[in-house]
Amino acid sequence: MSTHRYRPSRYYNVIGTAEPCLRVADGDTVITDTLDASGLDAGEAAAGARPNPMTGPFYIEGAEPGDTLAVRIDRLTPSRATGWTYSPLATTVLDPAAIADRPPSERSVWIIDSNAGTVRLREPPPGLEAFAPPLQPMIGCFGVAPPLGQAFSTATSAANGGNMDYRLFAPGTTAWFPVSVPGALFYLGDGHACQGDGEIVGTGIETSFEMQVTFQVLKRTIAWPRGETADDIFTIGNTRPLDQALQHATTEMLHWLGQDYGLEPRAASHLMGQVVRYDVGNVFNPAFTVACRIAKHWLTKR
Amino acid sequence: MSTHRYRPSRYYNVIGTAEPCLRVADGDTVITDTLDASGLDAGEAAAGARPNPMTGPFYIEGAEPGDTLAVRIDRLTPSRATGWTYSPLATTVLDPAAIADRPPSERSVWIIDSNAGTVRLREPPPGLEAFAPPLQPMIGCFGVAPPLGQAFSTATSAANGGNMDYRLFAPGTTAWFPVSVPGALFYLGDGHACQGDGEIVGTGIETSFEMQVTFQVLKRTIAWPRGETADDIFTIGNTRPLDQALQHATTEMLHWLGQDYGLEPRAASHLMGQVVRYDVGNVFNPAFTVACRIAKHWLTKR
Amino acid sequence: MSTHRYRPSRYYNVIGTAEPCLRVADGDTVITDTLDASGLDAGEAAAGARPNPMTGPFYIEGAEPGDTLAVRIDRLTPSRATGWTYSPLATTVLDPAAIADRPPSERSVWIIDSNAGTVRLREPPPGLEAFAPPLQPMIGCFGVAPPLGQAFSTATSAANGGNMDYRLFAPGTTAWFPVSVPGALFYLGDGHACQGDGEIVGTGIETSFEMQVTFQVLKRTIAWPRGETADDIFTIGNTRPLDQALQHATTEMLHWLGQDYGLEPRAASHLMGQVVRYDVGNVFNPAFTVACRIAKHWLTKR
Amino acid sequence: MSTHRYRPSRYYNVIGTAEPCLRVADGDTVITDTLDASGLDAGEAAAGARPNPMTGPFYIEGAEPGDTLAVRIDRLTPSRATGWTYSPLATTVLDPAAIADRPPSERSVWIIDSNAGTVRLREPPPGLEAFAPPLQPMIGCFGVAPPLGQAFSTATSAANGGNMDYRLFAPGTTAWFPVSVPGALFYLGDGHACQGDGEIVGTGIETSFEMQVTFQVLKRTIAWPRGETADDIFTIGNTRPLDQALQHATTEMLHWLGQDYGLEPRAASHLMGQVVRYDVGNVFNPAFTVACRIAKHWLTKR
Repeated sequence: MSTHRYRPSRYYNVIGTAEPCLRVADGDTVITDTLDASGLDAGEAAAGARPNPMTGPFYIEGAEPGDTLAVRIDRLTPSRATGWTYSPLATTVLDPAAIADRPPSERSVWIIDSNAGTVRLREPPPGLEAFAPPLQPMIGCFGVAPPLGQAFSTATSAANGGNMDYRLFAPGTTAWFPVSVPGALFYLGDGHACQGDGEIVGTGIETSFEMQVTFQVLKRTIAWPRGETADDIFTIGNTRPLDQALQHATTEMLHWLGQDYGLEPRAASHLMGQVVRYDVGNVFNPAFTVACRIAKHWLTKR
Repeated sequence: MSTHRYRPSRYYNVIGTAEPCLRVADGDTVITDTLDASGLDAGEAAAGARPNPMTGPFYIEGAEPGDTLAVRIDRLTPSRATGWTYSPLATTVLDPAAIADRPPSERSVWIIDSNAGTVRLREPPPGLEAFAPPLQPMIGCFGVAPPLGQAFSTATSAANGGNMDYRLFAPGTTAWFPVSVPGALFYLGDGHACQGDGEIVGTGIETSFEMQVTFQVLKRTIAWPRGETADDIFTIGNTRPLDQALQHATTEMLHWLGQDYGLEPRAASHLMGQVVRYDVGNVFNPAFTVACRIAKHWLTKR
Repeated sequence: MSTHRYRPSRYYNVIGTAEPCLRVADGDTVITDTLDASGLDAGEAAAGARPNPMTGPFYIEGAEPGDTLAVRIDRLTPSRATGWTYSPLATTVLDPAAIADRPPSERSVWIIDSNAGTVRLREPPPGLEAFAPPLQPMIGCFGVAPPLGQAFSTATSAANGGNMDYRLFAPGTTAWFPVSVPGALFYLGDGHACQGDGEIVGTGIETSFEMQVTFQVLKRTIAWPRGETADDIFTIGNTRPLDQALQHATTEMLHWLGQDYGLEPRAASHLMGQVVRYDVGNVFNPAFTVACRIAKHWLTKR
Repeated sequence: MSTHRYRPSRYYNVIGTAEPCLRVADGDTVITDTLDASGLDAGEAAAGARPNPMTGPFYIEGAEPGDTLAVRIDRLTPSRATGWTYSPLATTVLDPAAIADRPPSERSVWIIDSNAGTVRLREPPPGLEAFAPPLQPMIGCFGVAPPLGQAFSTATSAANGGNMDYRLFAPGTTAWFPVSVPGALFYLGDGHACQGDGEIVGTGIETSFEMQVTFQVLKRTIAWPRGETADDIFTIGNTRPLDQALQHATTEMLHWLGQDYGLEPRAASHLMGQVVRYDVGNVFNPAFTVACRIAKHWLTKR
């Protein structure tokens, strides 16, 4: 198992079946650079185009259609000291009647203070002078090639991953993706220094990153992305409306509890009924994201 | 400010404008009994009918249309040692293609162990023998008379509250409801000994309760229910699809941050964008519930 | 079978269980007056309040819970020579991004020319000087008391009917409603001189009417409103999102084809698959309306 | 302007940016062959794979990103005497509670009687012995390359067209698509001998076709597909839920009425409010389709 330091020279705005930028073995680690959502690199130079330019695709040897690619997020280090967001709230999260009152869209700069472990607005509006939420890096957009030779904009998401903007795609989490092509073809980018649920201003705090991930090929089949943190397992549904995204995530969790935890549908239902948690990922872009999450202390691997 | 011990003799299946069962003053506390969702009382005798029989309505003196009724949930004590749930997962949370595989609906009994502070299935299926989630009482359905002389089934919810099935409607939380009629006409019931997000098996652990709540009339106007816990403030949207419920809750939070915390829309957007949390209440009944939540440590009252 | 001429003295803004204004026999005809959506009568005097003041409720003898009330729309005669609409398009039918460009809401007057059989704007904007769509009266809001003692605003709709704003609720159509209380308690109002699909400006051409309807009690049970015109049968679903309204209407049609036309589910599916038509009723108010329609020439009563 | 007879040797399951199969001039006509949805050709031999194998892509010279490709459907001739459908109704159009009662999915063969101008089941179930709806050929799936190098499965649809399953994509109709790549890259296939609204059994009557279309490049920009028949103009929205598809279609129509018919938003709203019609295309596949339609006799080209 080796570690590769990959410096990208081109970026992709779709997750599809581009030529691999690097071939790595099952078990290998990759350290690489990602641009921010608008294509700016560590030096704030424009190196890629919107939306969400991706680094990759990485070809993971041994990954075959029907397998699962596990991607452990080892480390997400912002590669510059500023990020940016939009405001105000996106039209997708406002009552239609409230949209007319929306101030015009604006871009704001945030200071990323890695020493303090916080982010803060460079020019805070009244009331936010002391507002300094924690630096909590996460990956906004990542995934693998979809089936059939499809290719999807990195503005959206689907069963193959994509722009899910879910806070728990953070260091320590292992994300699973359903493999549809030989080598899986993994793309990543769109790192956020911080983000609330839903990416409701249309961005997290967008910045460039050095990202380190480790791949593992699982000889098993999944339908939707899954993930595991220190405390939880979760499943992901990506579509509109949220109701249907929730159905995808819930059904995937029901299957997972049967496959790995020995729970028949009725037992899994009893457990989920009392301890399930739903989280909301992206509610800004074409597809919306819902996570169905269960604390691992309720579960025993079979 | 007095405390009233009210023993109900009849129950309601709609939240409307029934004759008040008791008139109380602004600031008063009521201790009362609620039936479980199927109408069983503390002795498991059938005392009311489905759906979700309500105790009330309580007339709070001084509450006028346009006001807000604040209801502090002081205490929720199960009044018997068992509750019940349905299984399996509701059709509303499953992929349509997975519905055909659903086992038939069944009612299961749970032991409520107040000493241990847990709940557990009386006859656990394989794999759940040790499953004992915490006893975490909550109110499934409560609210005030809606406007216009309307009356809504306690199976659903709307801007006046109702069957929201949100875990944070728990002891220590203060819930706010928009008042539409003189006296507000407050109803409550449908207590759960425990419940995951979404009420995804169609029930929490349904049981009878002794509930204690304290009323306060606020001379201010809100559009959707709001709440405050020790740690958070939250707003509620009730409708389908979840996307729209989320819009209602988010817009209400935007207004709240302006009204009480001095944040103009752009500042409120910046704050919400980085620290907002969405929770999912009921996704089983006609209207679905989304909560928009902000930790209070990010906020300073103006 | 008698004909009653009923002149209302009060109006209702909810469809619930008010005291009947008139008791009529099964088979009887009622001729009565309705206000426009804002409460104006034939003389443009304010006689009722928003939303959609209803005439009624009529108690139909013999109608029992579980029955169906058939209401034949015999005649809809505008009782004044003007109506009004709002413009521009409602926020519910616009892309969120287009809402900000919406001009302010305005009320416009239309001339109802009963001789010419047309309607036309009194002050047409450029390009609409010659625009004179046909006078095609329809009932915007009608229905029967819902179950459980519920009462719903006439701004919305549900399984008991209500504000469906469907063009085919027009003279010659017989509408069916599921009866939930003795006497059915039928309300009607909100007549439109003309309206496109969806009521997408938030109104039809709103005016006062003399309406004539004939009641028949059917000893059969339905779940959602149904209707029959000279050419078609149709079923109605009322809820959000449209997807679910369409599911309600389609499922009701599937049942109807089995009940009255001897078609097993597979046969009904083959027929519907090739000849079904969907129409869109109200997409402005809280609940949206979809009609599932089949031309009668494809059907043979069993 | 020439007419090309193109015999395809390979087919595509995504609408993307494959190598053109043929380059034609602006104004040219193409006559070509399409497979049925499962890949069967005129001889019922398997020549392509699911889903919806496409013939193409055709490169239309002069078409540039930002242009519009107009495709006149000149002729759709079934190339064999049978087609097939699924039954029963799809889960997407049934109430969740009704899904469990669904009979298993079955494939049925239909006789296409070109002389009689009808289609009929080869083995009709009881009650459908005489059921012979008209032979009304239509194109289920067609469109142009989407932007960004994306590629979408022919099972779904988007702003670039795709699997819209709309009855009015029939001979005599001209469809407009937004061009995103040089040459537009037009694909077509999935012909239906007949189909009700919604493709609610998951198929139309699927068969192979000889299709004739004529291309015209328009130097104008559109956001969503548009169409024109002898009687109507229409716009298309493709997404879920139907509510949002309707918003896309309605907004596109509002823009069209301004661009070509000189109607300011308020005038366009008045006209649409009284005469708009909504049609439902596909409600089976991932994206749903709504058409917003206006009869041309209400309109005067500016």
